[in-house]
Amino acid sequence: MPTSASTQPPGAVNLRRLDPIDFLERSAYVYREKAAVVDGDLRLTYPQMLARVYRFAHILRDAGVRPGDRVAVLAPNVRQGLEAHFAVPLAGGVLCALNIRLTPGEIAYILEHCGATVVVYDGELERLLSERRTNPTLLRIGDGTGDGATDFEALMERASDEPFRHAPIDEDATISINYTSGTTGTPKGVMYTYRGAYMCALAEIFHANLSPQSVYLWTLPMFHCNGWTFPWAVTAAGATHVCLRKVEPANVLALIAREGVTHFCAAPTVLVGLANHPGAQPFQRPIHVTTAGAPPAPRTILQMERLGATVTQVYGLTETYGPITVCAWKSEVWDDLTPEERAQLKARQGVAMIAEAAHDIRVVDEAMNDVPPDGQTQGEVVMRGNMVMKGYYNDAEATAKAFAGGYFHSGDIAVMHPDGYIEIRDRAKDIIISGGENISTVQVEKTIMEHPAVLECAVVAIPDETWGEVPKAFVTLKAGMHLDAVELVAFCRSKLPGFKTPKAVEFGELPKTSTGKIQKFLLREREWAGRDRRVN
Amino acid sequence: MPTSASTQPPGAVNLRRLDPIDFLERSAYVYREKAAVVDGDLRLTYPQMLARVYRFAHILRDAGVRPGDRVAVLAPNVRQGLEAHFAVPLAGGVLCALNIRLTPGEIAYILEHCGATVVVYDGELERLLSERRTNPTLLRIGDGTGDGATDFEALMERASDEPFRHAPIDEDATISINYTSGTTGTPKGVMYTYRGAYMCALAEIFHANLSPQSVYLWTLPMFHCNGWTFPWAVTAAGATHVCLRKVEPANVLALIAREGVTHFCAAPTVLVGLANHPGAQPFQRPIHVTTAGAPPAPRTILQMERLGATVTQVYGLTETYGPITVCAWKSEVWDDLTPEERAQLKARQGVAMIAEAAHDIRVVDEAMNDVPPDGQTQGEVVMRGNMVMKGYYNDAEATAKAFAGGYFHSGDIAVMHPDGYIEIRDRAKDIIISGGENISTVQVEKTIMEHPAVLECAVVAIPDETWGEVPKAFVTLKAGMHLDAVELVAFCRSKLPGFKTPKAVEFGELPKTSTGKIQKFLLREREWAGRDRRVN
Repeated sequence: MPTSASTQPPGAVNLRRLDPIDFLERSAYVYREKAAVVDGDLRLTYPQMLARVYRFAHILRDAGVRPGDRVAVLAPNVRQGLEAHFAVPLAGGVLCALNIRLTPGEIAYILEHCGATVVVYDGELERLLSERRTNPTLLRIGDGTGDGATDFEALMERASDEPFRHAPIDEDATISINYTSGTTGTPKGVMYTYRGAYMCALAEIFHANLSPQSVYLWTLPMFHCNGWTFPWAVTAAGATHVCLRKVEPANVLALIAREGVTHFCAAPTVLVGLANHPGAQPFQRPIHVTTAGAPPAPRTILQMERLGATVTQVYGLTETYGPITVCAWKSEVWDDLTPEERAQLKARQGVAMIAEAAHDIRVVDEAMNDVPPDGQTQGEVVMRGNMVMKGYYNDAEATAKAFAGGYFHSGDIAVMHPDGYIEIRDRAKDIIISGGENISTVQVEKTIMEHPAVLECAVVAIPDETWGEVPKAFVTLKAGMHLDAVELVAFCRSKLPGFKTPKAVEFGELPKTSTGKIQKFLLREREWAGRDRRVN
Repeated sequence: MPTSASTQPPGAVNLRRLDPIDFLERSAYVYREKAAVVDGDLRLTYPQMLARVYRFAHILRDAGVRPGDRVAVLAPNVRQGLEAHFAVPLAGGVLCALNIRLTPGEIAYILEHCGATVVVYDGELERLLSERRTNPTLLRIGDGTGDGATDFEALMERASDEPFRHAPIDEDATISINYTSGTTGTPKGVMYTYRGAYMCALAEIFHANLSPQSVYLWTLPMFHCNGWTFPWAVTAAGATHVCLRKVEPANVLALIAREGVTHFCAAPTVLVGLANHPGAQPFQRPIHVTTAGAPPAPRTILQMERLGATVTQVYGLTETYGPITVCAWKSEVWDDLTPEERAQLKARQGVAMIAEAAHDIRVVDEAMNDVPPDGQTQGEVVMRGNMVMKGYYNDAEATAKAFAGGYFHSGDIAVMHPDGYIEIRDRAKDIIISGGENISTVQVEKTIMEHPAVLECAVVAIPDETWGEVPKAFVTLKAGMHLDAVELVAFCRSKLPGFKTPKAVEFGELPKTSTGKIQKFLLREREWAGRDRRVN
């Protein structure tokens, strides 16, 4: 038996496993009158939210969920998705929140890989289940056009709201699995633990300065790293969740005004949309915006600040519960700089969050030595600690590879600045991050290769004003074959989600090494010429 | 081997033991330019503070401290006391911060009981070591009149500031021992763990809303529950510590103005002194005051609010790392009440802090059943969880007794209000809390009994405007003997700290049961007649 961080039995008077469910039960105990959830016209107090979570947990157990079973959720940011973050673990299940931007084929693969016993899905997304090869129990929640009529809400009404207690579970048990596209195009299941979720939630509370008076708008998908653990963090703070079915600027601006929103998280793409919307007006209350996925452009930061927002950049991956570093602002030395200088500093990915040891986030060379903190030498970002995943579900090989040398290898290439802040410059993993969504170039290449006219191809990221990066395909056709860009894009679109479909196509010879290996870096160099970063 | 909360080996990539040292190393890494510590005219940045902590740890190891050894600190709230909260655990030691208001005899007892290898003491307090029976290495820090000349600061200058790494320790290992007077007059050593200290610090950050911009004034003694874990919390937040050798209102007000203080913790006695000081002026920045030890009078709360302070009441004991409940403010329902109604609500001890499960803090009858939440029925406050001590040092019997039934028994008698907030009404343990200091009535009684003229006596708390409660002695003299109150008080003062010396004496017969047991409750009833609480 391995030694452990905690040698006290969990029944000890002074030891309780770290469990995010406690956050909800506490807020329901303390904040009996306040809005926990706003979902359209529906408002739930914390006790009502907890009662629904108890009912939800009873439903899951009745549907056959047993300790350790996976429960998949396929939903936009509606209340049931939020409730699942508590009900699934409470029922002893493991939450798998699925990316609703994937194709039916991709969803089918994940459902098979995680072996979900139950799938809770939004009516609007039914088509995504059309290719499933497994036979889970399906629970249909509303589609935003009349919730009360759905099977799920009917079940909720009938279910018991008796407090539901789950069996004792180690705090290192898996609370959720988040699928990431990875580099190969085969999704990998990133396992989060109870302890990790709890610690990350407390870290997010600190860095976003969440308080019981906060009002959090759900612009960030809950299927991305469990919404960076904000379902648990906002609940722990006793703040208000404002659900959001569709992230459209007009919609977001209206809710900010109506609900007095104080916090939201979003990819820079969303900020660009908000800042440039004709309806954008200075916010009534100061807003704390947390952004990640790409460094926001200085102009976007300035625009958002003029509206009354403070923009904080964070950085992380699915494997780190979302954010693990924060571009911590140092008032004492940075407040007096020019707006441009400040925007430069804010575009960096920063330093370890409060629940991480500072030196557990490193930029290293191939021999795992720290690169010099000169803001020039590039290395890979590696990290370990309570904010790092437990491993990949049912994939010991990928886990071992990712954890080589005792650190998680991010695949992100960064420099270390003299002040200890990291800045991402490039990506070792062959992925593209577009509007906050990860794209495996290998998957896109495989899809293009399925076209009978294609001889070979390479897909790389190119910079894009709106999405940060988008995929571009370089294609060599078979001798005598014809294909134009529009046809190829349409072909891809029939097999890939919209965000993975190439936004540009170029036909011709591909650069290769003497041994015949395609030199993708040369294609990227060309597309990113004149920039000091190779990511956006 | 017991099962454990955490089954992952501590070397796992995703698991790091919770260790408050990480907070300092992170703040030194991130906040390289900012004031970590202000101590008189001296200002230290976070990197300077960390360098001093490394030096301090090297000194301790050189002085013979080995893993698990106890290191006692006898100091007012100066920087070295603060640094000891990091240096002692870093060196593998267990910190024992001693109450500087005790007598030399009491200090001698504690030094013997904890078996300290090293005592770090302030020059001003040398007399407190005069009766010691053990032979620890003594390290004398300055007395506020010229630090540079002391042995300790000379050692610091010579010591290495090489980063000091401590050996891996379970997070359940003991980080500190805090001696409490207990009910018998024999001090008991309350053991805190690394995990508990870490979690409590994060909880304090949330409830006090500490941020990197905060400036924390050290009015609360660090020898009380390790300053309620604020040495670690303020450091984790990257805020500024302002040291304070003597808590005098003029001094406090001057530092608040000079340093732009935003936070302090203090017993209500201190607040009374501040609010009524002729120099009291509205604060330049809003101040968050956390108070405990006794419910502050509504008038004091109002006075402090007029100066620009928000007063939050918390409640706890040495056995709960200081505060474990907070009178969480519910804006949504309480903001519109009258000042008097608000003060009433604020005088309650409240609900579990964020790192505690709400239902792990209970008010129970003798059979451990919850009392009805009617605001009337009294019961004992019991608690368990990560904010509760590990046990009493070298006292399995007292630990077992305190943990009977799987909860820590506070000895405090409370009611549970319908809204789930607790309010302390009485005390089962025979102690008096005077100006935030605990007094064992048994100890005072034993001292009085040493006087040759005394036949028997009883000591109870009586209400006091300034101190909340003070001890009053009821004394029966031996036949034919004479003694007056002034003589008796002088006798006690020669053997007890000032705060434990009776402030009133009454001679006469004591009320007794038919079996001859002194009925102290009758004496208390008489002194507290007309009040709805028996504590203050």
